[in-house]
Amino acid sequence: MTDPVALTADLVRCPSVTPAEGGALALLEQILSEAGFDCARVDRNGTPNLFARWGAKGHAKSFGFNGHTDVVPVGDPADWSVDPFGAEQKDGFLWGRGATDMKSGVAAFVAAAVDLVRDTPPDGAILITVTGDEEGPATDGTTALLDWMAEKGEAMSVCLVGEPTCPEQMGDMIKIGRRGSVSAFFTATGVQGHVAYPHRAKNPVAAIATLIARLSASPLDEGTSHFDPSTLAVTTIDTGNPATNVIPTTCRATVNIRFNDLHTGASLSDWMRGEAAAIAAQTGVTISTETRSSGEAFLTPPGAFSESIATAVEAETGLKPALSTSGGTSDARFIREHCPVVEFGLVGKSMHQVDEHVSVEQIHLLKAIYSRILKNYFA
Amino acid sequence: MTDPVALTADLVRCPSVTPAEGGALALLEQILSEAGFDCARVDRNGTPNLFARWGAKGHAKSFGFNGHTDVVPVGDPADWSVDPFGAEQKDGFLWGRGATDMKSGVAAFVAAAVDLVRDTPPDGAILITVTGDEEGPATDGTTALLDWMAEKGEAMSVCLVGEPTCPEQMGDMIKIGRRGSVSAFFTATGVQGHVAYPHRAKNPVAAIATLIARLSASPLDEGTSHFDPSTLAVTTIDTGNPATNVIPTTCRATVNIRFNDLHTGASLSDWMRGEAAAIAAQTGVTISTETRSSGEAFLTPPGAFSESIATAVEAETGLKPALSTSGGTSDARFIREHCPVVEFGLVGKSMHQVDEHVSVEQIHLLKAIYSRILKNYFA
Repeated sequence: MTDPVALTADLVRCPSVTPAEGGALALLEQILSEAGFDCARVDRNGTPNLFARWGAKGHAKSFGFNGHTDVVPVGDPADWSVDPFGAEQKDGFLWGRGATDMKSGVAAFVAAAVDLVRDTPPDGAILITVTGDEEGPATDGTTALLDWMAEKGEAMSVCLVGEPTCPEQMGDMIKIGRRGSVSAFFTATGVQGHVAYPHRAKNPVAAIATLIARLSASPLDEGTSHFDPSTLAVTTIDTGNPATNVIPTTCRATVNIRFNDLHTGASLSDWMRGEAAAIAAQTGVTISTETRSSGEAFLTPPGAFSESIATAVEAETGLKPALSTSGGTSDARFIREHCPVVEFGLVGKSMHQVDEHVSVEQIHLLKAIYSRILKNYFA
Repeated sequence: MTDPVALTADLVRCPSVTPAEGGALALLEQILSEAGFDCARVDRNGTPNLFARWGAKGHAKSFGFNGHTDVVPVGDPADWSVDPFGAEQKDGFLWGRGATDMKSGVAAFVAAAVDLVRDTPPDGAILITVTGDEEGPATDGTTALLDWMAEKGEAMSVCLVGEPTCPEQMGDMIKIGRRGSVSAFFTATGVQGHVAYPHRAKNPVAAIATLIARLSASPLDEGTSHFDPSTLAVTTIDTGNPATNVIPTTCRATVNIRFNDLHTGASLSDWMRGEAAAIAAQTGVTISTETRSSGEAFLTPPGAFSESIATAVEAETGLKPALSTSGGTSDARFIREHCPVVEFGLVGKSMHQVDEHVSVEQIHLLKAIYSRILKNYFA
């Protein structure tokens, strides 16, 4: 029996702050190689990535696991009550950066896979992809692994991403898709002037306020069968004008939309551009709009794969997990181009925070769930 | 005949950037004393001020002139094509800081007053108040002079402020009042959160945008018989949030209103507070509102005094001056508590700018107008 807690602790001790490998992928490669996996480092542009396959290449039943070993920075270590890379265990918890996001998830699926192929070798294949850049720009992480796999004829039939997914209790949520994300950066340029003569100026601050108020007040949709309503949030408006008697020349604002399958990054970019153009026409202020889409909405419709995950979760936890598409984005957005992809992992409450920690019991439970998922899949 | 151009040049050579006296008031005191004026320096808290009276104290016909000798900073002298305190004359212009705002105005009324009392002494009094702080905080300038005068039993029947008032051509505008000014400083405090879960956050940026859009879209009035419509201008909105995935905690905005005699600083402060409270109630975001009023609207209704100024202007320039209440504020806002006050001066186009300059001919014309005003007043 591979101990997923000891493996989590070993991984936490690797200081793998993006983009540092920190010894984490080397450790996994060693363990997986010893268990009979074919391993390859698929580094691209300095980003470390690990590919591992047990079983025949191109097998019709190829189960994929995906995860990452990189972690976000610790901030000021003095703010921590423990060594962020010490992997201390106390009070039933394991403490350290990456303990929940997501070295425990990687440890749990690696332990489950290694035990399965050693104890009851399945008729099928297990493919494990682990990147060293999910927290950073992610341009040469899971994407590089998928590109390399396509080139080498390596394919997954399905893929489970081991990110934390449970909001409150272990087993309460599976993610079957994610909303998309698009940001718009508005720059309004007007005509400077004295506040006493506003008709001689063109006020870019008023134009931006009107635009943002209009965008914020527009419901985008009411949600779809598997998605929450799309949401829009303004994150900043900035002018930097200290003079109370001067109408300034420029004002900037940024808006982010998380959208469901009724929209695309392009359709929403067009909409925001149109709204900005309407305000510009009304006010005489020039408004330039730059947009940046960081992922389209995607869905693995509920079916055999999500059902099998849910069954295993319920058997181990007694909870019927919700099938959700809420939350931020993940590397599942890349994998969905290749095969059905679902995300399940533990409760992520302390992720990215000071004194990140994970319940030791949850790590064991997560391994048990992953083991049951594999067993059911290959049954 | 006192040459107002030579006197303007002498004053420009005094480097009287607020709060420095620079020799300007001392020069005026000397000239006025020699002409028979009773002079007193009325300095308060380091601000230099000059009071001068010719004729009997408390005379029923006491004509007042008010002005200032302090000037705004020159900025980088290298940006100037002349010495800012050189008072160079070329091409029909006199160049230097304060040439238009308002050393030429002071020189013109001092020259007119000195010549009148010497050549045709009137049955009445002329009171001249000149401050060394109109451009700065102005808390110990004309206010100090008026306080001192009240204490000493000195009073003006009417007062003419010699600030530049003509937008395009010498003689095209007299100011018979000014709009008031009130600023509001809004600070919205919400609840930080991830953009993917806006319902868990309370977005202060959206609240500020909605508030500002609402204030900007509300016409305050349609103007009154002597005032333009009140105007509202937002001057800045600031957040300073660089993260496109985070809804921030705080957002600030500043608004300035220039208002006519339908409002007061207090009534508009109440209105803005009410609008902020309404948005706060709608959004759950806390909005604090600080207001600062820097002057109420005031009017010297058109009548004998403004008519006499207009008649003199028309006689000298051929133009029928508009009676206006437009523009920023001036020390007339203090004087209006004491007596009817009207403002008339030359074209102020280059005031506060690099290479400030004034037409030599306009200075002579301004003295001629002031002389005619005095002659008519005492006739």
